[in-house]
Amino acid sequence: MNQLTNAIGRVLPEAVEGYGKVRPFAGAFATVPAMMRQAPKIKRILPDEQKLVKDIETVFKQIPIKDGMTLSFHHHLRNGDGVVNMVLAVAAKLGLKNLTVALSSVFPVHAPLVEHVKNGVVAGLDTNYMSGPVAQAVSQGVFPRPVVFRTHGGRARAIECGQLKIDVAFIAAPAADDYGNINGVAGPAACGSLGYAFPDAQYADHVVAITDHLVSYPLSPVSIPQTRVDYVVQVDCIGDPQGIVSGTTKITRDPVGLKIAETTAKVIKAAGLLKEGFSFQTGAGGASLAAAAYVRQMMEDEGVTGSFALGGITGYMVEMLEAGLFRNLVDVQGFDLDAVRSIAANPQHLEIGADFYASPFNRGAAVNKLDVVVLGATEIDTAFNVNVVTGSDGVVMGGSGGHSDAAAGAKMTIIVANLLRGRLPIIVDKVLTATTPGETVDVLVTERGVAVNPQRQDLYEKFKAAGLPLKNVEELKQLAEKIAGVPQQITTGDNIVAVVEYRDGTVIDVVRQIK
Amino acid sequence: MNQLTNAIGRVLPEAVEGYGKVRPFAGAFATVPAMMRQAPKIKRILPDEQKLVKDIETVFKQIPIKDGMTLSFHHHLRNGDGVVNMVLAVAAKLGLKNLTVALSSVFPVHAPLVEHVKNGVVAGLDTNYMSGPVAQAVSQGVFPRPVVFRTHGGRARAIECGQLKIDVAFIAAPAADDYGNINGVAGPAACGSLGYAFPDAQYADHVVAITDHLVSYPLSPVSIPQTRVDYVVQVDCIGDPQGIVSGTTKITRDPVGLKIAETTAKVIKAAGLLKEGFSFQTGAGGASLAAAAYVRQMMEDEGVTGSFALGGITGYMVEMLEAGLFRNLVDVQGFDLDAVRSIAANPQHLEIGADFYASPFNRGAAVNKLDVVVLGATEIDTAFNVNVVTGSDGVVMGGSGGHSDAAAGAKMTIIVANLLRGRLPIIVDKVLTATTPGETVDVLVTERGVAVNPQRQDLYEKFKAAGLPLKNVEELKQLAEKIAGVPQQITTGDNIVAVVEYRDGTVIDVVRQIK
Repeated sequence: MNQLTNAIGRVLPEAVEGYGKVRPFAGAFATVPAMMRQAPKIKRILPDEQKLVKDIETVFKQIPIKDGMTLSFHHHLRNGDGVVNMVLAVAAKLGLKNLTVALSSVFPVHAPLVEHVKNGVVAGLDTNYMSGPVAQAVSQGVFPRPVVFRTHGGRARAIECGQLKIDVAFIAAPAADDYGNINGVAGPAACGSLGYAFPDAQYADHVVAITDHLVSYPLSPVSIPQTRVDYVVQVDCIGDPQGIVSGTTKITRDPVGLKIAETTAKVIKAAGLLKEGFSFQTGAGGASLAAAAYVRQMMEDEGVTGSFALGGITGYMVEMLEAGLFRNLVDVQGFDLDAVRSIAANPQHLEIGADFYASPFNRGAAVNKLDVVVLGATEIDTAFNVNVVTGSDGVVMGGSGGHSDAAAGAKMTIIVANLLRGRLPIIVDKVLTATTPGETVDVLVTERGVAVNPQRQDLYEKFKAAGLPLKNVEELKQLAEKIAGVPQQITTGDNIVAVVEYRDGTVIDVVRQIK
Repeated sequence: MNQLTNAIGRVLPEAVEGYGKVRPFAGAFATVPAMMRQAPKIKRILPDEQKLVKDIETVFKQIPIKDGMTLSFHHHLRNGDGVVNMVLAVAAKLGLKNLTVALSSVFPVHAPLVEHVKNGVVAGLDTNYMSGPVAQAVSQGVFPRPVVFRTHGGRARAIECGQLKIDVAFIAAPAADDYGNINGVAGPAACGSLGYAFPDAQYADHVVAITDHLVSYPLSPVSIPQTRVDYVVQVDCIGDPQGIVSGTTKITRDPVGLKIAETTAKVIKAAGLLKEGFSFQTGAGGASLAAAAYVRQMMEDEGVTGSFALGGITGYMVEMLEAGLFRNLVDVQGFDLDAVRSIAANPQHLEIGADFYASPFNRGAAVNKLDVVVLGATEIDTAFNVNVVTGSDGVVMGGSGGHSDAAAGAKMTIIVANLLRGRLPIIVDKVLTATTPGETVDVLVTERGVAVNPQRQDLYEKFKAAGLPLKNVEELKQLAEKIAGVPQQITTGDNIVAVVEYRDGTVIDVVRQIK
């Protein structure tokens, strides 16, 4: 097999068995789309036809679902999701084989998927993030075909561009009516935004709503419309609320985390971005929230009103909206009960689809309007490439999610990280699995100093003027190695267990089986 | 030229010059779609690219707009619309020729279109309704190609199915941000729902927002998303508020109209449809509102809560929503300031697109969920076919709008009409221009009696049991002729000036030039 080298120096095969031809990553904005939008079949329904079907098995038979089809699912019910397992159990019962599961993120609750792979029911997985037993199984080479990792925006793009073709979308519906209108804000499994399911509903050949909260027609508000939904199935329970939304996430108390957070806020201010109309995305972790808290303090001190906070929304962002610090929340996914409550009631809290959030191939995703995004990393290298797919042992334990999307869109992308992760330096010469390319990463903030991507000399000058603790990324790396030693290189096998697509559909890296 | 006879007996040519092959109307539910959805080109925008363009002329040059293209517009600004004339003036200035205008409805304010046709700038018109000078010009044969009449749902279908291909959609935007998010609820030209523009925005090759109310990013709520909008142009004024929304429409005081309205309400009750979850659509005219008032009284008397009122929404429907008589308003177009105020503030008041409202070729339009629709007619024949396109002089003065869509979807379709219109009987042997087929019309209510379509024997029995003043449609016709005489047959020329498409894209009739 001939090999390719992509734009960040990763050596890749020209094609991967079970994946196909590799289009090498050519630069964050190098790929120009050249296709028409995916065009599902035009259907109809007669005025007296019903959509309610008695159970999932009946749906399988009516469509009918066949070997080799792609079934899609959203991950808004997170580790409380009951629908993926429920549907795949029916597939197994009916003896189906060789299915592909296109699930926007995979959680520990999806462990039964591993058995379905071993039994041949499922052969492929297409996802943006994974943790738990399925991720471990991927690294062990349990899947017969390499798993496809996408970004949140890349998945929307792949669906809209016909590159991820969905035969049947099963949509876990916290609330639905009998004509297929769906929302995520009511019912026992209320999860808030249903944004990751929007592209599936728009482009799948068949769309099935699975709900445990069937309401009178018409449901309101409508997040996914009746015009795209073929069947509605009522079940006892679509998910466990305990696993769906967390309680309010707390700001970290770890002094190192707080120091990084404080520095991050100073970086934002020094960049000149903390001004009227400021827009911001950060994660839901305790350290990210701490950064948000410092940013908030500065906004209050300087009387700045932000335009919007984006991404996965937490109660902390809701508080900032309600305090008038942001005019809007733009929400593709809610992380806690406050986010669910807010999106249900506050018209300034907007629900958007994954395409609107982050697709690179439409006329403008929300990430393009971000001033600042604060992101994490499991590794970052001296070219600022970031790994969020594999851990220090080489095992899959994450995925881009919106990482690469927000990094590409934002005016300034900040990676926050402790210099050591466990006992290992976070900065390496070359990340094991490149996820987000260095050209889209501007600043690394650690507890021992701030490193600026050399391509952002403009930021370097501003930070210097502001007296920030600047360090070269090499210096930071050496500092870490002085404490923890030079980490041993992970050696992997040859077998490719996952292909990591950049948001535009090119291959930025592959993941190989662990030894 | 060979001729065809369609399912309601209209004799049509096999093809019409400037329109193409005629697919004859084959029955309201006889046509099964067999195509894929329209697939526009996939585009992108870089994070730092801007969409704001200084004027409409610049947009014409950047796209570029060429001879023969189809430009689309929505009609939510009604007789106050300033955008169609503004855009066509630029087309004329740039010397463009042979354009097709796809404007969802045409009003007197669009009179300058006639000059553009005479000058060769515009050659085709595709619309769902027209009144005023353009309608007269159509009947006089001013257009070089026959005008295409569609229904509101049929236009959405034609766009989604690629049969009405839009090169550039110009969207009059009461409020917009600089990234192309649009809504109709703010700004000096606020008009409420923007539902008729939704299909244009989804499927046009290029989408341009024209606004006089540019707000900070992000606009909220979002009716048409940034992901589909290519350019934003700020202008001084997109429309005259006086012409956009009326004051609150008043219930008729005409005793004949009130009698018809009262009978209509009794018909609904006798049909057994006035029960919990009742759904209803009616027009905005004084007589229709009177029917709504009688229905309301019965709902109050019997303690019935309706599910939804649909269609063009008036203040009267808003009152019923606010009084708890309907749980939801489902709004494709607002008719007055109360409707605008309500859709802006009340989450139970849903904005829907034309496809959701009425398309026959998706997985379920809202009209399919209607219990009752009350509609008007300029003529109705003894086979219950209705004309709402031409007047008693044969001149175009209307169009289906949602008439045929709601009639096809509702469980019971009621036509209300005075027995005489001016001095002419409203019931004829054969309507001049068939718009809505008799098979979708159930009941005719006049001041002299109620006629039931013979195919609805079930309703006849119920009405008889309720003691309603039943008459045969022939009897009603004779009653009218006894008063006003048998009207003279209108004679038209041979030249076909308009093709009337049924909602599924088949041809239900043609309009010929007046003599």
